[in-house]
Amino acid sequence: MKEERLKKIIKDIKDGKLSEDKALENLKKLPYLDMGYARVDLHREIRTGYPEVVFAEGKTALQIQEISRRIYENHGSVLVTRLDGQKYDQIKDPIPGHRYSPEGRILYAGEYPAACGAPVPVITAGTADLPVAEEAAWTLAAKGCSVKKIYDAGVSGVHRMLSSLDELEDSNVIIVIAGMDGVLPSVVGGCVKQPVIAVPTSTGYGAGAGGIAPLLTMLNSCAPGVVVVNIDNGFGAACAAASINSLAAGKEESS
Amino acid sequence: MKEERLKKIIKDIKDGKLSEDKALENLKKLPYLDMGYARVDLHREIRTGYPEVVFAEGKTALQIQEISRRIYENHGSVLVTRLDGQKYDQIKDPIPGHRYSPEGRILYAGEYPAACGAPVPVITAGTADLPVAEEAAWTLAAKGCSVKKIYDAGVSGVHRMLSSLDELEDSNVIIVIAGMDGVLPSVVGGCVKQPVIAVPTSTGYGAGAGGIAPLLTMLNSCAPGVVVVNIDNGFGAACAAASINSLAAGKEESS
Amino acid sequence: MKEERLKKIIKDIKDGKLSEDKALENLKKLPYLDMGYARVDLHREIRTGYPEVVFAEGKTALQIQEISRRIYENHGSVLVTRLDGQKYDQIKDPIPGHRYSPEGRILYAGEYPAACGAPVPVITAGTADLPVAEEAAWTLAAKGCSVKKIYDAGVSGVHRMLSSLDELEDSNVIIVIAGMDGVLPSVVGGCVKQPVIAVPTSTGYGAGAGGIAPLLTMLNSCAPGVVVVNIDNGFGAACAAASINSLAAGKEESS
Amino acid sequence: MKEERLKKIIKDIKDGKLSEDKALENLKKLPYLDMGYARVDLHREIRTGYPEVVFAEGKTALQIQEISRRIYENHGSVLVTRLDGQKYDQIKDPIPGHRYSPEGRILYAGEYPAACGAPVPVITAGTADLPVAEEAAWTLAAKGCSVKKIYDAGVSGVHRMLSSLDELEDSNVIIVIAGMDGVLPSVVGGCVKQPVIAVPTSTGYGAGAGGIAPLLTMLNSCAPGVVVVNIDNGFGAACAAASINSLAAGKEESS
Amino acid sequence: MKEERLKKIIKDIKDGKLSEDKALENLKKLPYLDMGYARVDLHREIRTGYPEVVFAEGKTALQIQEISRRIYENHGSVLVTRLDGQKYDQIKDPIPGHRYSPEGRILYAGEYPAACGAPVPVITAGTADLPVAEEAAWTLAAKGCSVKKIYDAGVSGVHRMLSSLDELEDSNVIIVIAGMDGVLPSVVGGCVKQPVIAVPTSTGYGAGAGGIAPLLTMLNSCAPGVVVVNIDNGFGAACAAASINSLAAGKEESS
Amino acid sequence: MKEERLKKIIKDIKDGKLSEDKALENLKKLPYLDMGYARVDLHREIRTGYPEVVFAEGKTALQIQEISRRIYENHGSVLVTRLDGQKYDQIKDPIPGHRYSPEGRILYAGEYPAACGAPVPVITAGTADLPVAEEAAWTLAAKGCSVKKIYDAGVSGVHRMLSSLDELEDSNVIIVIAGMDGVLPSVVGGCVKQPVIAVPTSTGYGAGAGGIAPLLTMLNSCAPGVVVVNIDNGFGAACAAASINSLAAGKEESS
Amino acid sequence: MKEERLKKIIKDIKDGKLSEDKALENLKKLPYLDMGYARVDLHREIRTGYPEVVFAEGKTALQIQEISRRIYENHGSVLVTRLDGQKYDQIKDPIPGHRYSPEGRILYAGEYPAACGAPVPVITAGTADLPVAEEAAWTLAAKGCSVKKIYDAGVSGVHRMLSSLDELEDSNVIIVIAGMDGVLPSVVGGCVKQPVIAVPTSTGYGAGAGGIAPLLTMLNSCAPGVVVVNIDNGFGAACAAASINSLAAGKEESS
Amino acid sequence: MKEERLKKIIKDIKDGKLSEDKALENLKKLPYLDMGYARVDLHREIRTGYPEVVFAEGKTALQIQEISRRIYENHGSVLVTRLDGQKYDQIKDPIPGHRYSPEGRILYAGEYPAACGAPVPVITAGTADLPVAEEAAWTLAAKGCSVKKIYDAGVSGVHRMLSSLDELEDSNVIIVIAGMDGVLPSVVGGCVKQPVIAVPTSTGYGAGAGGIAPLLTMLNSCAPGVVVVNIDNGFGAACAAASINSLAAGKEESS
Repeated sequence: MKEERLKKIIKDIKDGKLSEDKALENLKKLPYLDMGYARVDLHREIRTGYPEVVFAEGKTALQIQEISRRIYENHGSVLVTRLDGQKYDQIKDPIPGHRYSPEGRILYAGEYPAACGAPVPVITAGTADLPVAEEAAWTLAAKGCSVKKIYDAGVSGVHRMLSSLDELEDSNVIIVIAGMDGVLPSVVGGCVKQPVIAVPTSTGYGAGAGGIAPLLTMLNSCAPGVVVVNIDNGFGAACAAASINSLAAGKEESS
Repeated sequence: MKEERLKKIIKDIKDGKLSEDKALENLKKLPYLDMGYARVDLHREIRTGYPEVVFAEGKTALQIQEISRRIYENHGSVLVTRLDGQKYDQIKDPIPGHRYSPEGRILYAGEYPAACGAPVPVITAGTADLPVAEEAAWTLAAKGCSVKKIYDAGVSGVHRMLSSLDELEDSNVIIVIAGMDGVLPSVVGGCVKQPVIAVPTSTGYGAGAGGIAPLLTMLNSCAPGVVVVNIDNGFGAACAAASINSLAAGKEESS
Repeated sequence: MKEERLKKIIKDIKDGKLSEDKALENLKKLPYLDMGYARVDLHREIRTGYPEVVFAEGKTALQIQEISRRIYENHGSVLVTRLDGQKYDQIKDPIPGHRYSPEGRILYAGEYPAACGAPVPVITAGTADLPVAEEAAWTLAAKGCSVKKIYDAGVSGVHRMLSSLDELEDSNVIIVIAGMDGVLPSVVGGCVKQPVIAVPTSTGYGAGAGGIAPLLTMLNSCAPGVVVVNIDNGFGAACAAASINSLAAGKEESS
Repeated sequence: MKEERLKKIIKDIKDGKLSEDKALENLKKLPYLDMGYARVDLHREIRTGYPEVVFAEGKTALQIQEISRRIYENHGSVLVTRLDGQKYDQIKDPIPGHRYSPEGRILYAGEYPAACGAPVPVITAGTADLPVAEEAAWTLAAKGCSVKKIYDAGVSGVHRMLSSLDELEDSNVIIVIAGMDGVLPSVVGGCVKQPVIAVPTSTGYGAGAGGIAPLLTMLNSCAPGVVVVNIDNGFGAACAAASINSLAAGKEESS
Repeated sequence: MKEERLKKIIKDIKDGKLSEDKALENLKKLPYLDMGYARVDLHREIRTGYPEVVFAEGKTALQIQEISRRIYENHGSVLVTRLDGQKYDQIKDPIPGHRYSPEGRILYAGEYPAACGAPVPVITAGTADLPVAEEAAWTLAAKGCSVKKIYDAGVSGVHRMLSSLDELEDSNVIIVIAGMDGVLPSVVGGCVKQPVIAVPTSTGYGAGAGGIAPLLTMLNSCAPGVVVVNIDNGFGAACAAASINSLAAGKEESS
Repeated sequence: MKEERLKKIIKDIKDGKLSEDKALENLKKLPYLDMGYARVDLHREIRTGYPEVVFAEGKTALQIQEISRRIYENHGSVLVTRLDGQKYDQIKDPIPGHRYSPEGRILYAGEYPAACGAPVPVITAGTADLPVAEEAAWTLAAKGCSVKKIYDAGVSGVHRMLSSLDELEDSNVIIVIAGMDGVLPSVVGGCVKQPVIAVPTSTGYGAGAGGIAPLLTMLNSCAPGVVVVNIDNGFGAACAAASINSLAAGKEESS
Repeated sequence: MKEERLKKIIKDIKDGKLSEDKALENLKKLPYLDMGYARVDLHREIRTGYPEVVFAEGKTALQIQEISRRIYENHGSVLVTRLDGQKYDQIKDPIPGHRYSPEGRILYAGEYPAACGAPVPVITAGTADLPVAEEAAWTLAAKGCSVKKIYDAGVSGVHRMLSSLDELEDSNVIIVIAGMDGVLPSVVGGCVKQPVIAVPTSTGYGAGAGGIAPLLTMLNSCAPGVVVVNIDNGFGAACAAASINSLAAGKEESS
Repeated sequence: MKEERLKKIIKDIKDGKLSEDKALENLKKLPYLDMGYARVDLHREIRTGYPEVVFAEGKTALQIQEISRRIYENHGSVLVTRLDGQKYDQIKDPIPGHRYSPEGRILYAGEYPAACGAPVPVITAGTADLPVAEEAAWTLAAKGCSVKKIYDAGVSGVHRMLSSLDELEDSNVIIVIAGMDGVLPSVVGGCVKQPVIAVPTSTGYGAGAGGIAPLLTMLNSCAPGVVVVNIDNGFGAACAAASINSLAAGKEESS
């Protein structure tokens, strides 16, 4: 894609359609929208397959509103993560027709893409991991994946996970979310062929609290093929999962 | 127990009582109750000797209420830990006749089992360790142990502990709870034959605060036989202590 | 696969081919080989798609030799990781025809599977990251992936990476290996659609040495879709990459 | 400067203008104002080129008011950092004509020095880094530097930074502010000749949160010439930048 | 025991057998042997049920030899831990008839006590955990417990552990040893009623290496009743296990 | 003191004033007051030279009130530390005539002992270190030391400290309190003969915040003779300083 | 510079000197030399003002030899850092006429640039900091700066530093190197106007060893204008210092 | 002392004995010996009561030899710490008549000062703490203190410490050295009036190894009056102890 863009510019120079100075400008500046406090990256979809997502933490309600609107206007949809209920209520003029999950602290506006690929299982070890799971589920939906939720299936009662083995085996990629001891991804990873994306959560207390304990457990998983994202990063896990899922699905379609 | 269950299934297959498909189902799925946000592990009592306990942190008041009720209905009792006063007040329809300790942030509903085994001493180094001690004491009671409370017996006045040596020596297992320097379990462990379960607490400030200092002290205790649970984990200490106590008591009874 | 195995057992019981006791045995014990110091997991290939791999650290040369031989005899191939040169030299009776990489500290014996799927790019930020890259490359080869090596392409001269953009864009999944500041995966992830597996290395010195600095950088990557494995874990990254690559390739083939 | 002061004292002793005891006093006590709770360093401007700056954290509103006033009376201007809005509102009798930035939590009273030297670029990776950037910008202004703000130019869309390369190349020194993965200073440092002052911010969550991740990234930057200040320390970065900028400017002027 | 000792002293005073000064001496000084560099605690057996054990790290070969001999002479047996092969070879005049395990770095001299209580299962997740397991096994033997070794039974092939469930269920207490992700104790703890003593090992590499990762996993175990000892502390785990085992056994015998 | 007490008991036994059982009681139980939630150590003054001090954190207002009263009744004075204003206001029935410092979060009731020994200098690096300094100053007063306050004398204007050198040199021991870089004790320690007690404070932000940075600086001080207490522990520093000061003073008096 | 390069390419396209495909190549690939294990960045001098420097750690002697030679051939000089004596001796065919410092573990080959700008003071707190200081001094020399060495001037005898104040005040930028408590940069920074680059060293032991203590001290320095590089990073400090020094000098020359 | 020196200079100026330039020199430069790699602080004895001590780590054998000789020539004695046996053997021309302790890694040359003050007890918890204790003991001797060694008196057999209570109570200050759990100083501090200087050692293994565990324990000691030095810093503890001891002794003598 980049190459075509460059070829177009080169051709325009050769054809005299572009002055030297203008060409220089074009070569140096790829499109973005400078709003002073933000430079919205309008062609990220072309480059990485998905439009810019708004990370709400550290932004004011007004900044969130304006940045979201610009992306929505350019792409027809927008995803806002880490948007807690209090800040959500401060947004005065939100995009009409949007949906918001207080639990997942996530907002989506726009049509959902048609789901493609197999459903992506999102497993949690406990009920307290739900907020992270919801962030993952909403992100998957926004990226055209259907979701199979398997909540509260930790290894203190390992049969709760085993009973869902069929659903796991029918998938292309699995998201496993766990706090406290973070054991679940190792156990799932020891049972399946699929890539497992492990998400540690900040659930728990004491030594290793804030998610350090499950993060380390997951990084040291004896089950090969387990990859890890940052603590509570349901969004990141969903991005990687959607990318893997569409890879398989895309191949299916192209056949 | 597991074996008997498996044997029963196998016999049913042989006897033709169970179709192949049905048998498969039975073998793969042990009983749990799927509530969407939680999969209640109904046969944990059979497997590990005690019904599932509700860890309240990260759950909504409504989820706590519903999960507790289901366990209560199945087992006749339920224990809820880490339930702070504010969330407790939000539970609209609690189990009638339950008791609640704001200090120990713990709730119990149901009959208490008859106490068996020797009383379990719960020693704290300071007054500030009481919430953790209360969590341990309530858990012990729920598991059929009587408790001997020895509070504020830290080594800055070591005679306060020594004066209770008789009670320590009459027990099967001892829980020692300490924050700050976490010295008490080492001193107790140097005086007795019994297994000592050490619980670091998040009491204190400065370097090593949040319980890291006493946790490390206890893990490095020079007194062999001291084992450790996570910071502030009075519940976990009580579970291990009850298990050890009933082991001895069970032997007594069976004789 | 597991289901079929279970169905077979159930059918044998029904058909009277299996006594109750024998059935119980079969249900409880999946095949492994008990060598005293090791229980070789002979059916892992069926379960997770790949035979057990030998992690050499902490094992004696004799143990490595014997475990490898058993796996080789059962599967026709074996992969041994973290095998440093000194211990390699102590193996008295190695598998004939094996290959060994002193740099990647890795040994492979057996035929290579036919390569399928697109080549997997393995990019390193610096020359010092080569040992980890070699471990990844050998593992990929052992799992039937061809490899595209792009070494020493760090962001202090970012054009070195950009010049390989075409090769990155033709792949299904990319492994990016970096020590010190660990910046490269973020930059690659900002340029491509593919899932990026980031491997921090223990290259570097000072604060954050031993790989903590690049690990944290990668976990906090602003580029969504970057997933991470443990420090120096080229093997784990290759396992996940091979799994993703075969997923796409498998779909291709099945079409 | 110090030497001249000492020479003056020595000459006064020789000339008999200063008694022995008085001389001793003079040699031992350089000028400061003892306010009981604070010893205001009145000659710091002579020694280090800039008057004492008031760090508001940990001081009461009244202390801030009184210390600021004394410095203002001595120097004609005063800068107060880390002054959050709540404490600012508690200052009953502030210096007339002052300006205050709630976002940068910074106050300035007095004339601005004439700007000299090239504008100092202040680049941030994201919108959430603005408070730190504002602290840096206000400090630069108070020290006689003009500022070129380039906000939200992180590497997930690296062209947003590259489009400002001209402005970077026209400067004497560059401040780069980033949280999360802290990648931006490495990329900027790989593109320019100028010294780069990197400021990690406490933006982000999970492992390495509170700014540890970007701090380590920046300390391990592969781009030589990148120097680092403490997390969120926009003030410190601006002090160093102003010092470097005036160094170049001073030379210009003196030529 | 202590009480009797005190009563004896008191009686002797009353009976005039002990002068005031002598009594004071007796009350203040319990028996130990001062060797200058060591004060051997000769009556620890009376107090805590087991003679002093020699921790060899940081002691010279000569000191180890002399201290061991004194304990051996007083008790008829002695246990020396953390004695690596090199230092063992430097002991010029060892106790005749002793046994030494280079793998477990442990030495025992004397008769073994008759085994009582059920065998104690010592489970390891991998082959690399053997040194710690051997330290535990030798210590158990020295304390009169028989041992059931179950090595290399980690959860990447969970059936290897499940196949030994019967042996686990017949025990009074279980020692579970694991490095890397430290997952095994959580899984074992979720399957059994017995107290589980978890030992993290320093096996593994990368983030959380040196045993921090499995230590945190075990402290955060979701399976209640899991208690933890320090990294690589097979000795400590065995002390606690023997104490628990004898508790049950003692009850059996006394019935 | 202890010896005399023991001698008395022994004599009473001999003289028949004490029955055997009573003697045992006396030997085993040194005096303390069991209040259920607290065991007040009534003879600590005899043993360590100072009555028990009440650490208010983690205690309820009622517990503080009752424990304080008992100590006050026994000793004629009581010191309560870490008592924040909110909890202070909740004490319904405080000891009449007490004094309270909201800044130092400290309460004292009773007569002050006559000051003996040289005044103890309490130096702080900044104004924000005042709360810790006040805790130290009140504790010193309660222990019969007069105090010389030297506040805000940090090394960014080192002459502010140097101007007080005379007062430092006239003392027996010096308390130096600093946050942020924690440099002041090293500089003071390089100028004086006296023992220096360094107190790190939690002043500051960013890496090493919460006092870790100054704590490490002080532990690594190049000036020999600098000893350290925990972060913000003005109380502990004052205890040690008073002990040293009275040592010198006691000698003076006894001469 | 970059702009000119781009302009040249654009002009060549327009003038028909460059085919479309060729232009694309030129635009995408900036010059580097691919040696398989390394991609030598040949135009870094144009971009950042200095040729690529060889970081020897993690590279084989042969790789170092070959990469150095290529850079030397292209630029007429080459600098190799972190080259310990053992590896240096393994280089079979070094560049003739090179110089090597075993203490600074650094090698330089080529003419030295003419020194310009004021001498750069390199101050160390102790003799043990010399290796880092030598790395800085050699790097400065390679970049055309003369060096003023002031070694062993730590604050335990602060007059040793003060006696060199004149030399400090005549400089443009100062490098201050310290281990243990890392106090020196704060003291220097409190006395001068110049930017101070602080280098923590791994000198010392105990808590904060490996350089963490001085790193934190320096990041928290109360003296504004102090910037920091990674532990032991004399090279990085010298790069920044040379950049600042040449900035001033360049201005001088251009006037 | 400093004042007298300054007064002398001032008087000389007034008397015309000192020219202005000369006076300036005198005021700015206090005496030290510049050896290039070291600036020996010749008047430290005047300032802080003790000559400069040579810290051998990081210095070459030749540097140690030369620096020691100069101090010895100026003061008649010299103390060298952290001098391991290997480096000691490399010193070609040592000071005749010196003594060296391989265990304490410490060297002393010169007459010993006459011992004054009470003997200083040096207590260790275990035999492995001896090297640190020896460093402390030699330093105390070099500073004119006699030493009372009480080795291996840890709390796992607390009577070993209690038996030495008399000796502790007859002292002015006590040094307590402990690794592993670091409990001993808390117990000693709870029994005595004297200031207790706690030294954590790097004895032990696992979590908190390298001395972090005992360091944190000691910083959090519940016994007020316990002060702490860095891990393994026997030298620093002895400096503080000697300072306190001489304070008391000085008073005695002057009476």
